[in-house]
Amino acid sequence: MGGRALVQWEQNRDNAPEALHVDLYAGGAAPKEVEDVTFYQVPYAPSTQGVDERLDIIGRMPELRVLQLVSAGYDQVLDLIPDHVTLCNGRGLHDASTAEHALALILAAQRELPRWAIDQRERRWAPTPQRSLTDSRVMIVGHGSIGAAIERRLLPFETEVVRVARRARPEESVHAIDDMHALLPEVDIVVLVTPLTETTRGLFGSREFSLLRDDALVVNVGRGAVLDTDALLAQNGRVRAALDVTDPEPLPVEHPLWEAPGVYFTPHVAGGAAAFYPRARAFMDAQLARWAAGEPLANVVRPGR
Amino acid sequence: MGGRALVQWEQNRDNAPEALHVDLYAGGAAPKEVEDVTFYQVPYAPSTQGVDERLDIIGRMPELRVLQLVSAGYDQVLDLIPDHVTLCNGRGLHDASTAEHALALILAAQRELPRWAIDQRERRWAPTPQRSLTDSRVMIVGHGSIGAAIERRLLPFETEVVRVARRARPEESVHAIDDMHALLPEVDIVVLVTPLTETTRGLFGSREFSLLRDDALVVNVGRGAVLDTDALLAQNGRVRAALDVTDPEPLPVEHPLWEAPGVYFTPHVAGGAAAFYPRARAFMDAQLARWAAGEPLANVVRPGR
Repeated sequence: MGGRALVQWEQNRDNAPEALHVDLYAGGAAPKEVEDVTFYQVPYAPSTQGVDERLDIIGRMPELRVLQLVSAGYDQVLDLIPDHVTLCNGRGLHDASTAEHALALILAAQRELPRWAIDQRERRWAPTPQRSLTDSRVMIVGHGSIGAAIERRLLPFETEVVRVARRARPEESVHAIDDMHALLPEVDIVVLVTPLTETTRGLFGSREFSLLRDDALVVNVGRGAVLDTDALLAQNGRVRAALDVTDPEPLPVEHPLWEAPGVYFTPHVAGGAAAFYPRARAFMDAQLARWAAGEPLANVVRPGR
Repeated sequence: MGGRALVQWEQNRDNAPEALHVDLYAGGAAPKEVEDVTFYQVPYAPSTQGVDERLDIIGRMPELRVLQLVSAGYDQVLDLIPDHVTLCNGRGLHDASTAEHALALILAAQRELPRWAIDQRERRWAPTPQRSLTDSRVMIVGHGSIGAAIERRLLPFETEVVRVARRARPEESVHAIDDMHALLPEVDIVVLVTPLTETTRGLFGSREFSLLRDDALVVNVGRGAVLDTDALLAQNGRVRAALDVTDPEPLPVEHPLWEAPGVYFTPHVAGGAAAFYPRARAFMDAQLARWAAGEPLANVVRPGR
């Protein structure tokens, strides 16, 4: 595995096997010489928009064998690399930060944290009885590795978890998405944590909202368009929502969601929190060691042909 | 155990053993005839102030044998009952609701939930990198049953917990309060969950703050006066705080804590959330059954002599 690796973090350069030539590129102005790069880890930048030099330089890497992302999504690079390049993603690296934020959103909604923040700003001391997360039945839609991480954090709150995924896995008590509608009337909280695909776009809309109990809570830490924003607005507070992702995103200043009753949201900050970085660096150390040793890489989403 | 029981919740009257005569009193205007009451559960009312009819009527109960509180604190009734009355409290009934709120406060502070609430109100979409709870070392000061409930909810967040209580319990890795100062420089988050006693008043003050790392977080879900408010204000944002209790309380409108940098608080709503009620009613069912059967009562804090 000759040539040169281009990675983001000093730790990975310092810990790399001696046989490997490793240089740093953390984003921004591209390095001048990239023609001999064989392994490229695209620098992590949460929700970049517009022209992206990090991706543009891929076209100047004729020797590239491995394109490594540390995000879970990889749609944006599929058209940028020839078939012989192996594509790896960052599956699992955002589990801890995203699961933590899902719990933060659930607790914020149940314990009215946004209201107390506004009250503090307005110097108002006005306690009232509070909902709990405790004793809730929580449906997790998209029970992959982040969903499992959310479940582990929910269970000590004396909750019951209902697992839903694309396909049923009876041995793990995972229900198929087709069974979701029958289960929705029985849950207090729904957590959406699916990727955005043609199947999941608009997955949670008018019909799904209508099946929920009054005062139920819908949490979205997946992708904004999995939830039908108009259907949420039509609830007018009957069902509540706590979102880290919206559709559209960023939310235009004139959008009605800003003031929708019972809706609280954060600006897509779940996955990129502090917990991500040590996990990503540890993964990259191990991945570079595998590459240098000629061992099979982890998190391959499209093998090079 | 003859005479009459006066309790708050219909469930407890309906489930009581047939031999027991049970009436309801949920607070407010006192029942006319209480002279034959032998078992009185003081109706639960979060943070009552001023004249309190619930307590006044104790003086009209010459036959009283058991005074049952569903709060943990009982200072307010010690002088109201003769020595032969057995006093029971609500130890444990607030564990789930208080522990849940402690996690809500920690996550609110780490993930900047108050900031997003203000941003939403002002229609501002401005994501920035976030702290995590994950990987934090968290000291719990007052490791009793609520402290243990907090620990159970913290551990799945991939945290490390440092236990501190009044007395060391080496077999449970609980450090004595005297060792707290040596441990403070090594922790990221401190959770105060002690009752207010002459020992714990002002327990966390200038010296303790000075031992904490920059950007550490102090959470208080115990009693306001356990934390020295002036010492917190003097931090001026170097150390952060997330509080459910303040000193004084309620916080006067002109108090500097309302706008103190890095300080977020909720108005003493931790213990009285929804999770409390089913636990309190279940406890009362069991307690009335014990009383009717002449069995030893649970949660006795001062036996009748």
